[in-house]
Formats: sequence, C-alpha cells, structure tokens
Amino acid sequence: MSLAAPDADLLARIERRLGPRGFTTDAQDMAPWLTDWRGRIRGSAAALLSPADVDQVADVVRIAAEARVAIVPQGGNSSMVAGATPPADGNALLLSLRRMRAIRSVSPLDNVVVAEAGVILSDLHDAVAGAGRRFPLSLAAKGSATVGGLISTNAGGTQVLRFGPMRSLVLGIEAVLPDGSRFDGLSALRKDNRGYDLRQLLAGAEGTLGIVTAASLRLVAAIGQRAVAWVGLASPADALALLRRLEEATGEAVESFEIVPADGLDLVLRHIERARQPLAGRHAWNVLIEAVAPAGAADPTEAIGQALGDAIEAGVVEDGVVAANEAQADALWLLREEMSEAERIDGMAAKHDVSVPVSAMPAFMASARTEVEQAFPGVRVLAFGHLGDGNVHFNVRPPVGVEGRPWLETQGEAVSRLVHDLTVAAGGSISAEHGIGQMKRAELERLGPASRLAALRSIKRAFDPLSLFNPGKLVALAPNSGVP
Amino acid sequence: MSLAAPDADLLARIERRLGPRGFTTDAQDMAPWLTDWRGRIRGSAAALLSPADVDQVADVVRIAAEARVAIVPQGGNSSMVAGATPPADGNALLLSLRRMRAIRSVSPLDNVVVAEAGVILSDLHDAVAGAGRRFPLSLAAKGSATVGGLISTNAGGTQVLRFGPMRSLVLGIEAVLPDGSRFDGLSALRKDNRGYDLRQLLAGAEGTLGIVTAASLRLVAAIGQRAVAWVGLASPADALALLRRLEEATGEAVESFEIVPADGLDLVLRHIERARQPLAGRHAWNVLIEAVAPAGAADPTEAIGQALGDAIEAGVVEDGVVAANEAQADALWLLREEMSEAERIDGMAAKHDVSVPVSAMPAFMASARTEVEQAFPGVRVLAFGHLGDGNVHFNVRPPVGVEGRPWLETQGEAVSRLVHDLTVAAGGSISAEHGIGQMKRAELERLGPASRLAALRSIKRAFDPLSLFNPGKLVALAPNSGVP
Repeated sequence: MSLAAPDADLLARIERRLGPRGFTTDAQDMAPWLTDWRGRIRGSAAALLSPADVDQVADVVRIAAEARVAIVPQGGNSSMVAGATPPADGNALLLSLRRMRAIRSVSPLDNVVVAEAGVILSDLHDAVAGAGRRFPLSLAAKGSATVGGLISTNAGGTQVLRFGPMRSLVLGIEAVLPDGSRFDGLSALRKDNRGYDLRQLLAGAEGTLGIVTAASLRLVAAIGQRAVAWVGLASPADALALLRRLEEATGEAVESFEIVPADGLDLVLRHIERARQPLAGRHAWNVLIEAVAPAGAADPTEAIGQALGDAIEAGVVEDGVVAANEAQADALWLLREEMSEAERIDGMAAKHDVSVPVSAMPAFMASARTEVEQAFPGVRVLAFGHLGDGNVHFNVRPPVGVEGRPWLETQGEAVSRLVHDLTVAAGGSISAEHGIGQMKRAELERLGPASRLAALRSIKRAFDPLSLFNPGKLVALAPNSGVP
Repeated sequence: MSLAAPDADLLARIERRLGPRGFTTDAQDMAPWLTDWRGRIRGSAAALLSPADVDQVADVVRIAAEARVAIVPQGGNSSMVAGATPPADGNALLLSLRRMRAIRSVSPLDNVVVAEAGVILSDLHDAVAGAGRRFPLSLAAKGSATVGGLISTNAGGTQVLRFGPMRSLVLGIEAVLPDGSRFDGLSALRKDNRGYDLRQLLAGAEGTLGIVTAASLRLVAAIGQRAVAWVGLASPADALALLRRLEEATGEAVESFEIVPADGLDLVLRHIERARQPLAGRHAWNVLIEAVAPAGAADPTEAIGQALGDAIEAGVVEDGVVAANEAQADALWLLREEMSEAERIDGMAAKHDVSVPVSAMPAFMASARTEVEQAFPGVRVLAFGHLGDGNVHFNVRPPVGVEGRPWLETQGEAVSRLVHDLTVAAGGSISAEHGIGQMKRAELERLGPASRLAALRSIKRAFDPLSLFNPGKLVALAPNSGVP
C-alpha cells in the first residue's frame, strides 16, 4: 500500500474549494515550509493549502482521502524533531493552519480562551492579558509556535511545574479526523466523563490522528507580582530538596525551577554580552526560581527570601540573591534563556530531551554523565533545564579542539543511543517535550517495548487506517513494513 | 458473535493459578459484589477472582481470552452507574482488585505515591499523610472506592477546582490489556511525549480497555491551615464572580467552592440532627468555600476574610462567616456533605450529574429549572454542587404529596431525557463525574453525536475487538448490534 500522488484534477478541485489565497504550488512560496527550522530535514509537497476555516479543512480532507492523498498539517514549523516537515516524495499536501488565527472568545469568568489553531503563542498571551488573565505556558519559540502545534506536540516549557504541559491546559478541541468528519469537542467542560477522552488523545498525537482546528484553553489570574531568585548550591539533590521547601513556603506558587551547571553558566557569561555574573562566587550548580502571585494576593518575595535564608542555614543552599526589581529579574532570567544560544555559539552538540522520575534525576545526571564521558573520551556533558519536572536537556559536546559537525556525523548516533539506553534503564522517556516526529522515530522503534508500540499502532490504525495524516511521523502502521 | 460461558475445565485452570484465596464460586461470597451499591442492577458471574498480583491478573486474562470468556473488573463497587456490575447472563468472570492493596512506595521528594489498584482511598490518604503529603482528591465513597476504580472512572469530588479530576493526578499506570499483555507505564514521569498517552486513555475507560493494577499518583504538600467559610448570596452568577475574586486574593488556593440553594439548606436543617443554621438570615443561594495552605505558608484565613468583606461591600455577597476553628469548619462542611443524605430521607428523586461551561452554569440552572418545572407541573428542582467546575447535581423531586418510587417509574425516564436534552443544548455533558457504565449507556447512544460514538467504538475495537473487558458498559462495539 502506498500513498497516491495528487493529479491535476484533484489539485484543481482543492484550489476551487480554497480560493486563490488558500492554495499555491509556487516553489518560492512553499520553500520556507518544506524544511524543518533546524534546517536538517528537507521535504517536498504537491501544494501548500491554507484553509480559512474548519469547513474548508474538512472538505479538503474529504477530497484528499477519497484519492488516498496524504496531508501534512503544519503550524509555526518550529518542531524540534521535524514533526511538520512533509516526506521527500512530494506526494503529500502541506496544510498550513496559519490563516486560522482568530481568537474566538476570551471569558475571564470562565477562565477560558477559545483560539483557532493558527494563533501564535505570543499573540495568545497578549489577547488574554487584555482581559486580566494569563495563559500559563511559554517557551522559546513563542513568536512562531501556534496553538494547534502546541497541542499536537503537547508542548512544555518553563512553567510546567505548576500548571502542567499543554495537555493540562486543553479544555476543549475542535478537529477534523482522517475521514473528513469533525470532532466538535470545543465546549470547555471542566468535567466530562462520557467515555474515552478524545481531547487527550489528540493532544500530543503530532497530527497523526486528527487536525486540530481550534481549542478551548485554560486561563489563570494575571501575574500581580513575581519573585525571581538565583541560587548557588552543591548538587542537583540539594536543588530538589530546596524545591520542596519553596513549595511548602509559598503554597505551591513556584512556577519555574531551572537548573544550570557551573560550566553552563560559564558559557553564557562568555558568549552573551549582556550576561552578568549573578553571585560573587562560583557554584557547582545554579538554580533560577520564579514564584508568582495574582494582583490581589500576597507578594511571594518575602516568603521566598525567608525560605532561602532557612535553606542557607540548613546547608541546602550556598548563596542566593532575590531580584529587587523587574530589571534584576530579567537579568537573572537572561542567564537561563540564553543557555541554548550560548551553546550554539560555542559549537555543535548531540542534544537530548530526556526525562526520568523527578527524584531519580540527580543520580541520573551524575551517572549518565560518567558513563557517556567514559564511553566517548574527551566529550563534555552539559545537562540543564527543568529539574522540577524531571526533565533536562542532556547535551554532549565534542572533545575540546574537535570540530562539531564531522564529530556529530560520525559519533552523534552512537552517543544518542547510549544516552537513550541510559534513560530507558532509569525508567525514563527519550522525548520529554519535543515529541517523536521524524527524528526520533527509529529510536522509538528500537527501544519499544513491543506492547507499547503495538498499542500506539492499533490507535493509529483505528483512526487513520490508510495513514493519510502526517505520514512518516511518530509511529508506522506496521513495523518494518514500509507503511508510513 | 457472543461471549462464551466458562466451562468447568477453564474454571479449574483459573482456580489452580489463583489458589484458594483467589477463587470462589460460592453464592454467598459473591452476592455482595453482584449488585450495584444503589441496589438497582443485579448481575451474575461464573466465579469471583481475586488475584494477588499483576502476574496473576495477566495470566487469568490470557486464559479467559483464549476461551473468549469476558471479565468484569471491580474495585470498591461504589459506581453510581452500575459500571462494575457483571451482566445478568452469568457468563462473565468477576475480577476483584481488592486483594491488591499494597502501597508500593511513597516518595515525598518526588511527590509521588505508587499504589496498587485495590488500595482504598481513605487508606491512601492516611499512608501519604505519614510522609507529610496529601493526595488531593476526596469524595463521599472514600471508605470503599479504590485507586483502580477512581482511575477507571476518572473520579471527581470536592477538590477538582484546584488540582483537577483523577486523570490530572495520574502520573503512571500499570495495567493488563485484553490480550493479556502488560502495559508497564508506572514510571512517574512528569513529562513524556512518546506518542499517544495510553495512561490518559485508560483513565476514565471504565475497565473496557484495560485492567488497571497499580498507579503512580501525584501528591502535594500536606495542609497546614485551612480557611472555611459559608456565604449567602443572591444568585449563582454572584457566586461565580465571588470565586474569581477569591482566586485572585489567595493566589488560587481555593480548593472547594460548593453551591447550595435555600431549599437545599432547608432540607439539611430539617433532616440532619447535627445541622445548625450557618447565617442569621435566609439567602436564595449559599456557598461553602475552602482555601488551604501548607504548614510553612501564610494562613489563607485573613485573605479570605478580607476578600469576603470586599465582596459584601461590592454587593456580590449578602452575608458570610469564616470558621474560627476546626469544629466550626467541620460544622459548615456538614451542611454540604449531608446534602445527599437529607435528600434521601426526604424521598426519591430523578438525579442527574451534568456539566456545562462554568460561565454558562448560572443561566443553565435557571432556565433548565423553569423548563423542567413547566414540562412536569409540580416537580421541584434541586441543583447543587461543584459550581466552580461547571458541574451540578441536578435533581428533580416529585410534586409534594406524590410518592417517589411510582413517580420515578412512570416519569423518571422522561424527566431525565429532558434534563439531558437541555444539557446537550447548552454544550454540556450528561456525565460530569459518574461515567456511563450501564445506566447512562442508552442516553449516550441517543445523544451522540454519531462521529463521537464512532470514535469511541473504534478505540474499543482497537484494544478489545471481542469485547472481553467489562461487556455491557460505556459503548457497544457496534450500534444496535447486540454486541456488548
């Protein structure tokens, strides 16, 4: 079974349905969307479709499904795993949701925003801020990532600790299924026990089960005040103990708790001009903390300051500073936010987005580093990120003086296999935030287990037996069958 | 296709595998578990199986599946919709998880407890309290409801507002699938984006896709202090406005926000001896509020008192009282907790567990009441409960002087259809908390929509093509086919 190439008649039918603004086969128009944003995977498509509403999406899906033509849905094209890049054969239709960018409603009383799939995250933030509310998820790609893509990848970011990842914030979904039928699950119900949760199934499905066209999302009170702190300490284990202290002291108002090792901070101070050393001394590990409160509630600054003082007295923390104003808070955040940029400037690395149970992370960070550095002499491990979620970016840099690209080409795969093997052995996940897409598909197949893969395949088969939606991503219909 | 009755040989094989403690066909031993706890649905079973561990569960499932014999998993048997009562034909095996009641681990550092499916909710509360932690879900049946049942029904309760329903608290699941394979998803990962979330699919599946044998559950800091208040106000709309004020004032520390109408409070004061009038005057609507904080954090009492004062000034609240001590707090909670008991004493009613979007609930409560009271002259609507979740128990009592049972038998179905029609018209759910089970299955089929039912069926088919797990519950494999 292979997917069909669309003929001229089919393309003409789709063009008629979408109109001139919604259809193009122009190579230049299509080019930016055919390569993943890291520029590593190049795809091809028969046409770029930009429907204006859910009815157009449903009609296009029906027309394509009849002809067995595949569709690749795409939002901001900021996938870290080439999850929205079409196959190279050029037979698929690339369907962009970017024209569907209406905020259908904001209800402060409901604490709900209804946004179309193409709404960009930073626009969503702005729209709800006007209503005195906040959408509590943010990430580096907020200027391009869209609501549909964020849902389909179950995006994470720096605020997962308190409010969970994207799937925790999804109250309703409108989607088109592979047979062209509509799933009208947009009603924002806090409680709904009418059987299997289709919204939760579509969240994180990477567009392989349905095309999300709109969503009802949970809002929370706008931030009135925030306390931002930077602390130096001896180990990730101490950092975790500190997190629990802070949660108790603030009534779980801690939203960000990001760990950075000394050599990570060194990189930022070296490569990022605006970066300033946050503490007088050098500490083996650093943590950035943010706790927030709504306008009417007590400022968390005092509670954080008090708890940090107690933690220093208890020997859990070596030194720390609480930002006295917003400028200082931004300066501390800069040190964490520019981590990836500093790494990029420093050279290429084999990157991994792994999670293990939270309490297992300190030991994992130490033992995995030792194993990797022993297996590949000279390499330098840099692990940093969302310690409170049990999720770090475990990056492996080549030995000093070795050029990144050729090293990655010859050693990268072996390094990644080892990191993933160690992660699985620790009961962890080889994709905490970024999904599987194209880039981690072989590793997902390799690491199984078989019963889990079988369950994924049976779900895919139930929704999309011809594999028309986002072929070549996440999981193949059958193992080693050549079926996408 | 019909399910087989187990023959003597099959039963003997299962008895050998489970041993004498794990197997019985004794009518008296089985009797308590063959009827739903409301005593409305009677089932029958070929044997009652009580496996001691997940290996025994997997082996029994494999043995039964080979012979096409159905299995009905059961926890505390406290389903409100007869979701754990076996079919009347007596062909199914009833599989109790109650012997699997180990707490495998409690990790305060992880904020995770790993509990087997048979652990009773109140035992879980006690176990984690010993470690300075809290499992933030509770409900009336906590003395019998089990972890496995709570997950399989995605249970709600009075604390959903802050921490969500059961599915939000599930970090990992161990389960046995209908083919006897094991799903080893117990590792408590806060983030895991390796494809479709099987844990979220099993949560709320009512045992029709897999038998949950253990789970990793999220814990939060133990309660240090709580503020409990009772307020009188004019309308559900005012109550909702108050909720948003309190969330802002406390940094979202409000965990319970329960609404009771004047005639509901009257019932409690009349029928429950220990109940005392909470406020001097009578108010059209009452709200019970609880906000909590961990031991190290600021007591929420002051913030709640201040916010209530502001709300009285703003005309949102008519009168209110904040409990000065735990005895007063318990006395206020009693008024809400005994609501169902007071109703029961007062006589039978047609009960409904419906949800609509939160902001739509005030208008729904008013208009649905009018419609029902016009369509069935003399009936009295009593709607109360989880206003902050958009979920009320919408109960319809017969006209004064009319006996409950015969009225229910002749009018109950028509009343329920109308309530459900109005709920669906408001974009709501006919089962907010209780699930579908046997009792709401016909209404689920009637109200569709067809595309949603088709998706539910395709998932069921993907996991359990022979319908061996919990036949007759949730959704039939095919509409009107006689296939369970």
